[in-house]
Amino acid sequence: MDEDEVRALAALTTVAPPGDPWLGAVLAEHGAARVWADLVAGAPPPAGPADGEAVVDRDRVALRWRRWHAQARGVDVDALLAASAAAGVRFVAPGDPEWPGRLEALDAPGGRRSHGLWVRGRGDLRNLCLRSVAIVGSRASTPYGGHVAAELAYDLAERSVVVVSGGAYGIDGAAHRAAHAAGATVVVLACGPDVDYPRGHAGMFTDIARTGVLVSERPVGLRPRAKDFLVRNRLIAALTPGTVVVEAGLRSGALNTAAHAAELHRVLMAVPGPVTSAMSAGCHLLLRDRQAACVTSAEDVLDQIGPLGGVPPGPVRVTAELAPESARVLAAVPRGGGGPAVIARACGRDLESTMRALGLLAAAGLVERCPAGWRPVR
Amino acid sequence: MDEDEVRALAALTTVAPPGDPWLGAVLAEHGAARVWADLVAGAPPPAGPADGEAVVDRDRVALRWRRWHAQARGVDVDALLAASAAAGVRFVAPGDPEWPGRLEALDAPGGRRSHGLWVRGRGDLRNLCLRSVAIVGSRASTPYGGHVAAELAYDLAERSVVVVSGGAYGIDGAAHRAAHAAGATVVVLACGPDVDYPRGHAGMFTDIARTGVLVSERPVGLRPRAKDFLVRNRLIAALTPGTVVVEAGLRSGALNTAAHAAELHRVLMAVPGPVTSAMSAGCHLLLRDRQAACVTSAEDVLDQIGPLGGVPPGPVRVTAELAPESARVLAAVPRGGGGPAVIARACGRDLESTMRALGLLAAAGLVERCPAGWRPVR
Repeated sequence: MDEDEVRALAALTTVAPPGDPWLGAVLAEHGAARVWADLVAGAPPPAGPADGEAVVDRDRVALRWRRWHAQARGVDVDALLAASAAAGVRFVAPGDPEWPGRLEALDAPGGRRSHGLWVRGRGDLRNLCLRSVAIVGSRASTPYGGHVAAELAYDLAERSVVVVSGGAYGIDGAAHRAAHAAGATVVVLACGPDVDYPRGHAGMFTDIARTGVLVSERPVGLRPRAKDFLVRNRLIAALTPGTVVVEAGLRSGALNTAAHAAELHRVLMAVPGPVTSAMSAGCHLLLRDRQAACVTSAEDVLDQIGPLGGVPPGPVRVTAELAPESARVLAAVPRGGGGPAVIARACGRDLESTMRALGLLAAAGLVERCPAGWRPVR
Repeated sequence: MDEDEVRALAALTTVAPPGDPWLGAVLAEHGAARVWADLVAGAPPPAGPADGEAVVDRDRVALRWRRWHAQARGVDVDALLAASAAAGVRFVAPGDPEWPGRLEALDAPGGRRSHGLWVRGRGDLRNLCLRSVAIVGSRASTPYGGHVAAELAYDLAERSVVVVSGGAYGIDGAAHRAAHAAGATVVVLACGPDVDYPRGHAGMFTDIARTGVLVSERPVGLRPRAKDFLVRNRLIAALTPGTVVVEAGLRSGALNTAAHAAELHRVLMAVPGPVTSAMSAGCHLLLRDRQAACVTSAEDVLDQIGPLGGVPPGPVRVTAELAPESARVLAAVPRGGGGPAVIARACGRDLESTMRALGLLAAAGLVERCPAGWRPVR
């Protein structure tokens, strides 16, 4: 994707809320640079998808377009990217080596596709999501739910499974804290990735950014609104091969994430709890209606996601999911280990891009440092 | 079934353990009177089922037959029936109006069919089992399991569902005690129905006998042996349209009952619990492998057994499952109520059998006493 497209997509995140199906269709048809230019210039809204593909309310589109236009005029893309960089936040667009392939599931016609992600942290989003599981649940979790979420997250992290969750108190926080102790985690936020929401998780977010990532469709500085969490939930489901609901009341947002996972044909799992606990009623509903598989341990989760998302620790299966550049670098890493210059020569790439690829591969647990430089894991 | 057959079946329960597939096949082929006569006389074992239907070890059959013969010589059938009657225990054989139709599921070739039941208590076994649910679980239940079993049993009893279970401490006892407070229950024992095993349940058994029944394939006075419980478990599963496992460790006998229920194509249900509790591990195993439906309340249980065993409280559906005699008497009960003589005339039967039928119908909750005598419920 050329730089103008990426800049336009980044700019659009400042005015259009994520997951707008009309905007998704228009971007797919006309490209982001043209749409952004029209928006800034105050041109009429571009033609949407042909009739029959999606029913669109023209008046509502025009209203939205005018509102976005009013905001777009004031956007300075260079300043946006500079402010993001200053906050340690990068923009990752579709086609970027760090773009997670699983998000393509959102690109179906009428779907709430994602146009770009703001990412904070040293981890590589794509590689972190390769072998991952979403752990979700209520903010107002019980001690039982918090305990189970932590046990499950730690055991999964120990088995090199990356935990993906929101940033809330309760199950989200318990899962991230425990997983972070044994591995990397991915926090999917409804606010800008530099916004510490909730405040009490500021320290945890800083810790997570050292090895994992915080990711959002909203730009730096943006505080979350209630409806943003529902749109965010589809990302949690889409980034992972499976979602585990640890504890959820009947009106918990975690059931919304679960519905997205089911819709995307991802593995949906639920942890049972005491039937006397209202905070497990949502889990039991999913089990009763046979929407979710019953899981009680990390082994159960691995059994469930095995064939879909469980990448066994052999490079053969992994390379199939890696970006072609990373796969080429991985193939060039000598069994006995070798320095970046050796590896760069072997794969015919420049030193800088080879070192970047080695960093990504290390984050994914596929290569590790050794006296000679880098060697494949296993 | 003629009286000689019934007497022979009763006598056989004193020497042959229940659920012997060879004996089941031989009884079906030759009749109980002939088999018992041969056994007492020391004749050779009768010819079993044709080759191919069941593989039978002739030597083992001969050994068993000799052992049974040694015991059979000492059996006085009149004394047995007198002792049973003195203990308030009656013998119910296949074909008896009180014989539960669901036990026919055990009559499949090679199956562990039942030849007769010793019944103690004022309830009518057949009618009690029409709308029933088995509630099973561990003897060493947790306070959580005991609480859930009691809640579930009470709520089901309140909805006129009869609870069927064993007589053990733990889940069995909790279910019976709670159900008895709101309705009738059926205790299925591995010992003679007059034997208070365990001792601590003697008072509860006496209470249950006032409205429900205690039932066993073993005669009065017989104490249980370990293997008898496994054979008994098939009866619990077969008597009911569905079995609920409330709490069970991975080696609990309740999983044996669950396996029987699945084999008999009855509805199998499990109550979830904390994943941190080993006493819920068996339930979670059934849920994980999708063998059991997840239930958390009496409503969930009724949803599950609805079409199979849930007889709605309208007489139309019930009469279809009643013995023809009882159905005729029920149809003759005037809406405004009437005395037994009026009802007997209306259905063309003698007073004594009419009164007996009214007792059975009352036990099943289909008729009730009123100033005029008896009236239909609803």
